[in-house]
Amino acid sequence: MESRPLDALNFARGKKVIVELKNNKQLIGTLRAFDIHINVVIEDVEERVEGEVKRKLGTCFVRGDTIIMISPA
Amino acid sequence: MESRPLDALNFARGKKVIVELKNNKQLIGTLRAFDIHINVVIEDVEERVEGEVKRKLGTCFVRGDTIIMISPA
Amino acid sequence: MESRPLDALNFARGKKVIVELKNNKQLIGTLRAFDIHINVVIEDVEERVEGEVKRKLGTCFVRGDTIIMISPA
Amino acid sequence: MESRPLDALNFARGKKVIVELKNNKQLIGTLRAFDIHINVVIEDVEERVEGEVKRKLGTCFVRGDTIIMISPA
Amino acid sequence: MESRPLDALNFARGKKVIVELKNNKQLIGTLRAFDIHINVVIEDVEERVEGEVKRKLGTCFVRGDTIIMISPA
Amino acid sequence: MESRPLDALNFARGKKVIVELKNNKQLIGTLRAFDIHINVVIEDVEERVEGEVKRKLGTCFVRGDTIIMISPA
Amino acid sequence: MESRPLDALNFARGKKVIVELKNNKQLIGTLRAFDIHINVVIEDVEERVEGEVKRKLGTCFVRGDTIIMISPA
Repeated sequence: MESRPLDALNFARGKKVIVELKNNKQLIGTLRAFDIHINVVIEDVEERVEGEVKRKLGTCFVRGDTIIMISPA
Repeated sequence: MESRPLDALNFARGKKVIVELKNNKQLIGTLRAFDIHINVVIEDVEERVEGEVKRKLGTCFVRGDTIIMISPA
Repeated sequence: MESRPLDALNFARGKKVIVELKNNKQLIGTLRAFDIHINVVIEDVEERVEGEVKRKLGTCFVRGDTIIMISPA
Repeated sequence: MESRPLDALNFARGKKVIVELKNNKQLIGTLRAFDIHINVVIEDVEERVEGEVKRKLGTCFVRGDTIIMISPA
Repeated sequence: MESRPLDALNFARGKKVIVELKNNKQLIGTLRAFDIHINVVIEDVEERVEGEVKRKLGTCFVRGDTIIMISPA
Repeated sequence: MESRPLDALNFARGKKVIVELKNNKQLIGTLRAFDIHINVVIEDVEERVEGEVKRKLGTCFVRGDTIIMISPA
Repeated sequence: MESRPLDALNFARGKKVIVELKNNKQLIGTLRAFDIHINVVIEDVEERVEGEVKRKLGTCFVRGDTIIMISPA
């Protein structure tokens, strides 16, 4: 098992993830890149609010400080 | 007894924990990894709101600045 | 594919982007510059609230900590 | 008398303290560890809301940025 | 075109700008100085709320972390 | 007169002060210690809300980022 | 003209200023000291809320992160 949290993100690279934001929205897409601030780039993004798809967004750069958690989709 | 807070987290590694978030949600799962920012990775996660299970989430990366506290489940 | 989030922003330079702000506003314009704090400069900016154009703003310097995400327009 | 604030926390180590959190909750327990971010570990914790005991929590790791103040119980 | 956001602010020095604040107020005045924290000094300032002039303020030092964006007036 | 703000706090050491917190509470007590983060230790503390004494708290460690201002009592 | 924001504060030292706080209060007094965090010390302070004097406070140490702006009184 990984011993550092960023190793887990590295393992999720190229996989579909749910990114939970502090504004109660979710972004579902493929994790393409991240850095130590947890800034992430996700591709083929769907924005959902309370489970309902609101927008298709292509590739998103998300600022790390707006993220609560990242989990597999 | 440990003298530094991160020693206590290290002791909890591999054990089941409750992670309290600033958005009033709780994540219950096995603590797999953490770092000095208190970013954590937990496995087999249940998300609870006011004690009620809302979602099963598999493995979660949680950004440290959204966490209030971590205690044994 | 890029491996760092700022590479994705670099790729978007000179292209039209949507900048989502924490105050529920969107700025649509051409990404001209950014830095590691995600401070950005965008040109020919339209400010939108819930999809409706509110103002035309010319060139905007936007402080990084007010930004949620940046995606292609 | 101590001249630095962390000296006062050091003096409280092993003693019963009240930790006031920004979410209006109080944690009462024995201070076991702290660091320069004011991350703390407390043992035999009772969580109180407006003076009423809500939960018994065992050992808690509390992230420093959620703490308002720490005083003797 | 400039490649760094602070170059754009430098270009605006001596010109009239709108400084949007997080508290929904706008300051309109001449940009006199700024630093890497986006602390700014503006002169001959008018404070506006929803487009309406509330106060004339002379020279203002504005702390960077209260600023959303800066654009030409 | 002092030229740095922390000199003023040093001058207040051992004197009775009012510490205004971001949660609208006031702590009145003797300033015993402070550091560059404005973490403070105050003794013989009274907690007041809108001028009314709510609690007597003995010695308090207060985290700097919860403090608005400190003035003589 | 000054080219750095802190030069403007230096120029205001010893003069009467209005310090606008994030909690919608204003402190009016003589600027005695400041530092790079914009922590300030002001003397002979009047606290105002919506233009009305609420309290006389003598000398105040104000933590920089609570300040929106500083302008001449």
